Order: sequence, then C-alpha cells, then structure tokens
Amino acid sequence: MALVVQKYGGTSVGTIDKIRNVAQRVARTHDDGNDVVVIVSAMSGETNKLVAMANEMCEFPSEREYDVLVSTGEQVTIALLAMCLQSMGYKAKSYLGHQIPIITDSASSKARIKEIGQDNIRQDLAGGSIVVVAGFQGIDAEGNITTMGRGGSDTSAVAVAAALKADVCEIYTDVDGVYTTDPRIAEDASKIEKITYDEMLEMASLGAKILQIRSVEFAKKYGVVLHVRSSFNDNPGTLVIKEDSEMETVLVSGVTYSKDEAKVSVLQIPDKPGIAASIFSPLSDASISVDVIIQNISTKGLTDITFTVPRTDLKKTLKIVEETAQKIGAGGVTSDEKVAKVSIVGVGMRSHSGVASKMFSTLSAEGINIQMISTSEIKVSCVIDDKYAELAVRVLHEAFELGSKKD
Amino acid sequence: MALVVQKYGGTSVGTIDKIRNVAQRVARTHDDGNDVVVIVSAMSGETNKLVAMANEMCEFPSEREYDVLVSTGEQVTIALLAMCLQSMGYKAKSYLGHQIPIITDSASSKARIKEIGQDNIRQDLAGGSIVVVAGFQGIDAEGNITTMGRGGSDTSAVAVAAALKADVCEIYTDVDGVYTTDPRIAEDASKIEKITYDEMLEMASLGAKILQIRSVEFAKKYGVVLHVRSSFNDNPGTLVIKEDSEMETVLVSGVTYSKDEAKVSVLQIPDKPGIAASIFSPLSDASISVDVIIQNISTKGLTDITFTVPRTDLKKTLKIVEETAQKIGAGGVTSDEKVAKVSIVGVGMRSHSGVASKMFSTLSAEGINIQMISTSEIKVSCVIDDKYAELAVRVLHEAFELGSKKD
Repeated sequence: MALVVQKYGGTSVGTIDKIRNVAQRVARTHDDGNDVVVIVSAMSGETNKLVAMANEMCEFPSEREYDVLVSTGEQVTIALLAMCLQSMGYKAKSYLGHQIPIITDSASSKARIKEIGQDNIRQDLAGGSIVVVAGFQGIDAEGNITTMGRGGSDTSAVAVAAALKADVCEIYTDVDGVYTTDPRIAEDASKIEKITYDEMLEMASLGAKILQIRSVEFAKKYGVVLHVRSSFNDNPGTLVIKEDSEMETVLVSGVTYSKDEAKVSVLQIPDKPGIAASIFSPLSDASISVDVIIQNISTKGLTDITFTVPRTDLKKTLKIVEETAQKIGAGGVTSDEKVAKVSIVGVGMRSHSGVASKMFSTLSAEGINIQMISTSEIKVSCVIDDKYAELAVRVLHEAFELGSKKD
Repeated sequence: MALVVQKYGGTSVGTIDKIRNVAQRVARTHDDGNDVVVIVSAMSGETNKLVAMANEMCEFPSEREYDVLVSTGEQVTIALLAMCLQSMGYKAKSYLGHQIPIITDSASSKARIKEIGQDNIRQDLAGGSIVVVAGFQGIDAEGNITTMGRGGSDTSAVAVAAALKADVCEIYTDVDGVYTTDPRIAEDASKIEKITYDEMLEMASLGAKILQIRSVEFAKKYGVVLHVRSSFNDNPGTLVIKEDSEMETVLVSGVTYSKDEAKVSVLQIPDKPGIAASIFSPLSDASISVDVIIQNISTKGLTDITFTVPRTDLKKTLKIVEETAQKIGAGGVTSDEKVAKVSIVGVGMRSHSGVASKMFSTLSAEGINIQMISTSEIKVSCVIDDKYAELAVRVLHEAFELGSKKD
C-alpha cells in the first residue's frame, strides 16, 4: 500500500461532470489499496471571475482581502469533490488551508509555505478516508488567509506530499507529460520518461509551462517524486526525480524556446567599476527581470553591455536605461524586439564535452546567426533572430536525436 | 461614542454597486464617531447558485461539505466590502467564522452559536478599523465549518452584538421596519416604532418574515437592542426592545396572517389516556410541525382532535394520521386545505380584558366563521376559511385602531 498525493488543475475540475471524472480516478486509486490525498484547484474560469469582481470593486484591492476573495474558488471545488466521493460510497473529507493547517508566511498573494500539519490528515487516512485539500491557500501565523500565486496548487500538492512523505505526487494536467520539445514545432517530439529536478527547473523557466517553478524547487529539496500526467487518459506521464546514473547517458533531454524576449544594448560605456550595477539596479528596483547578459571586451576604455528582458517590459526598460546611459556618459542605447531564445537542457552535458559546439555548428549550418550565448551546467541558450526560432528548435531536436526516442 | 453592529442582508449587497452603497452607510456611521462591526450575507442569488451546484453533484450532499460549499458566499461579500472601505480611505478588516472565532455546535446547516471570541475584534476596533464579519457561518470545536440555516446572518449579528455588548444591532433590510400588518392588505398599515421581543417573536412566527426567529430569541436573552430598518433610505425603523410601561398602554401591536395552513381532524377517537401522544408522536418523528390543536369534549367515550399543519406537509400528514387512526380505532380522518390563521399580537392584552372577545365579535360582524381558536399571553389566533383572510386582517386592523397611528 502506497500513499499517493494527486493534484488536479482547473481544467480537470472545470465542470460538475469533470469533477465526477476526477472522483472516479481518485476512487480507482483508493480501490487499488492506496491512501489518497487529493489537492484541487478552482474550477477553470472561477479565479478569473473572482479577480474581475475585485477589479470592478476598486483599482488596487488590498492583498489581504484579495486572498480572502480568491481562495473561495478552491473551497467550492473541495466541497463538490468530497460530496461526489461520498455519494459513490467512499469516506471523504475536505480540508481548507486553515484546517490542515498549511502555515505560510504573511506575503499575501505570493505566500510561501512554512509548515504543514499532518495529524488531521493522518488520522483521516487511518480511518479509511480520502482526504481532499484546497490548493493555492494557506494561513499565516496570525490566522489571515493567504494564497500562493498562480499555479500555487502545484506547490500545495508537493508540500503536502513532502510533509506526509508520500510515495508519489501525481500532477494531473491536460497534457501527457513533459516533451522533448513543443510538438507543435517538431512533430516527432517525444514524451520524456524521466527527467531530473534541475532539468525540469530549466525546462520550466525556459518556457515549458507545465509546473509552477516553486513546486519543482520544493520537490527537489524534499526529494518528492513527481509524476506529471494527463487527467484525460491512463498513459504513464513523465517522472521528475533525483538524478541517477542512467540519466547521464542522455546528452540532451529537451529543446525549449521563448519568443517573449527583447534585446537591449548600451553602447560605448566608459569602462569603470560599478557600471553594471548602475545599469541593472534601477531595472531590478522596477521589478524587471533581466535574463541573458553579455559584456564586450573593453577597447579604448569603452565597453558595450547587451541584455535581454521580457518583451512586455521593453518600453519600461528603455525609459529607465536611457536615463542611466545619460548619467554614466554612454554613447547610446539600441534595442531589438525580434529576438528569441533557444535552449538545450540536459544533465548529460556536464560529463560530455562538445555539446555546446554541436549546438553552435547545427545553427550555423542553417545560416542562423547567434547573437548572444549563455550557459549553465546543464543548459546552453542562444539568442537568435526570432524568425528562425522554429527552425532552430527543429534542427536542434533532430541533431540531438530527441525524436528517435519515440516508439 | 457608541458601538454599533450593522447587518446587511443579501438584497442589500446583491451587486458591486449595492456593496458600495453599504460601504457608504457604514462609513457614515464610523464618521459619526461610532465603532462599527458589519455583518453581511451572501450576495443575493449566490447561495441559491451554490445550493444548485450541490444538488447537481448528488442527490443527498453531506451536510459537512454542504456547509463548506455555501459558506463561500459570505466570504466573497466580506472581502469585497472590506476592499471597498479601504479604497475609500478607511481601515477595514474582514473576518470569517473561524477567525473571530464564532464557535458553534456541530449541527451542520443548522448550527447554534456557543461562544464568540472578542479579542480580535476589540483589538481592531481599538486600532480604528471597521470590522466586517461573514454572517451565517461558524466553526465547531473540531474546526469544521458550520452554517446556521437560512436567515442565519441575523443570528450572527445579534450574537456578535451580544458578545461585544453593542449599543444597538441594526438589521438592514428592504422594508422600513415592522408594520402593524401587511401593507398590501391594509393600505393604512403603519410602521411600529417600538415592539417587545415577545411580540416580535409572535409576529415573526406568525408570518411577518423579517427576522430569523432565533435571532430575536437571542436578542431577548441577552437584551440586545434591535433596530430593523431599510438599507435604501434613512428613515428610522422599528426598535425591538425589552418591555417598558409605556408599551402596555397599546392593546394590540399588530395583526398577522398565514395562508400556508391546512386543517386535519381525527374523528370519533375512543377517549383513553395517551391518544394525543399516539397521534402527534409519529408527526413529530416525521419533522412535521403541528400548530393549533383543539380537542372536543368527550361524548359517549368518543372525542375529536383537530389540528393545523403547514399546507405543504398535508399529504405526508394524512398518510401518517390515517395509519394512526386505524391503529387507535378512530372513526375517520378529514382535512381542509382552505384555511388561514389570523392573529392579533400585543403585550397590552395581558393587562386588559376583552381583547379576545373584541376580536371574535369583529369577525362575527363580517359573517366570518371561526373554526379554531388558540391563545397565548400576548396573542389570539383564529383559524378561518382562507377566502376571508384579507377581509379579517383589514377589519381587525381597523377595529384595534392600528392604522390611526400613522402621521
């Protein structure tokens, strides 16, 4: 007998009928002799409806009251799912954040979990109950309701799984698992059977939007085995786990891309200590997240700095950077919205040389110019002209033989 | 400076704009130098929508989960009202049942309040905050969410007012106050300035559906001054208070009626000890509430028993009573759906004789036959043919000079 934590997102519980389907899957897992804890999101559309009410009420709703409002979405789902399981003859009990309790810090709308009570859940499981938990919400030390940001139910699920030392945390979603790349671009993209936490973190932050990043960090920290799978079929999905020796034999696990990038260059900067800080501190103060940064070698005491930001932040970025450029006596600022970032991810590249150069030569063979390069231990990213993004993904996917994994 | 508890029902908070109006009224009370605690219901229609979801999910939703579901309605309102007050520049904080806490027994969907915490509210009031409390909901000793039945927000408000020893508990509704009778029947019905708890209890249970009966019992027990008034204008409403000497000079405070009655007679019952119990125990077991009961004087060892039940329960009642009649050897069972109950209510009648006989002669003068009579210390009720109900209300209202109170 195993202890299984299952998480169902908003599209999986979007209607009364879909909640019935979820109940059947939960019941089957219970019938197989497992203890089951289910974490659910709000029915799809509900959170947006609640947010719209808050925005209609006032321009800047207080975060505390915002959390009181939006946390009702998950409350509706847990009640309906528990009712449904009971009507099918199962013992079931719903739990709100404060009933478990899921204790968070007091950062409304982006709270972080600090502690999870186990006694209530364990007692119910021991009594044969299926436990249904509201995702996304917790309570702070003063008893205020908090929520954990969009996608927060993933983190709720992983945190509950970690607290209970569950055998697996199944994340049900509307796709079959994590793919080697976007199947809309490379038809032969194949489902990845196993992936490490670090690879998943790179994949997620690079644009494969399947799991809230924080939930993967949490799973890594506590060694929670994640199983990302579809709620609409019984296919095995992707296991997100600790690195094992077998996984190192795979050079590259996936190819990701992002087209939401813009490139900014500050030219002819007098090269003095502290210029980087003077450029990037004002951006950080404005909550603009800077991604790839390169600085040219200084010639004649002048240097150039180029970096990428989310395309939606370009206007704000330019306004700030142009002020800075004047202040530090730079020659000028240029920008380009038409860039994309293509990346390869894989723990295997740590112990194999030549992965990066294979990426560069593959792009070069197609006449794709690499504008910027950024590397980490398990990732190489190239910034290129965005019109080549799909082509780059396809040729890299082929070059690293990712399609061939398919049956 | 006074401590004012205000309660706004579903129609008063039915839309974002109506919540804004409520916020303005609350703010004005605060500006006048009062401490204000506001109790709100779910936006009108919301509770029905949630109940419909439960019923769509399964035929007999568990009461625990039902309460988890429907209590979200009030949670939405408190968040929106608190946001609105904050956007107007006031300090405000919302409270759920578990945050105060409002401790109830564990009777899901019809919980009774056992204890109310004061510390959190008092601290916020001392800090200059307006406190916004979710009505209708509480939490039991095990931390389960409970609700208090339809109209439960009235009881929440009175209980909070009692706990805080508030100067007044204002119940805002869509009418101006409590009237001497239904203005749709007697055009000159006048608003009652002051009424005792006992009169209000008789008025409420007799069909003037303004307040949840339990809230009036609670107010009486703890001496909470109630002020029933309209949320759509600034007219003073009706004060519900302890009896004072002045009130006894008024013979009759109001005339009420109910057309939801049915009459059942069990005929020719062998008159033995225990027959009443044998007839009424099975009805009580079936949760049918019997109202007026009369038993004829026994002749030749046989007696008749006649009683009224809610018209909607007549079918169920007849099925049960016919079985009982056979068992106890009664002669037969007859019923009449076309009856109404007309009542006069007033603490003054305790110290004045002749009130009942004036009622009987007034009805008789109009040729209205009285089928059953029931009296209490401050009330006389007559069961009559339902086609005369409106006529009876009008002539009684006139006979006791209730219309003349009008300006």
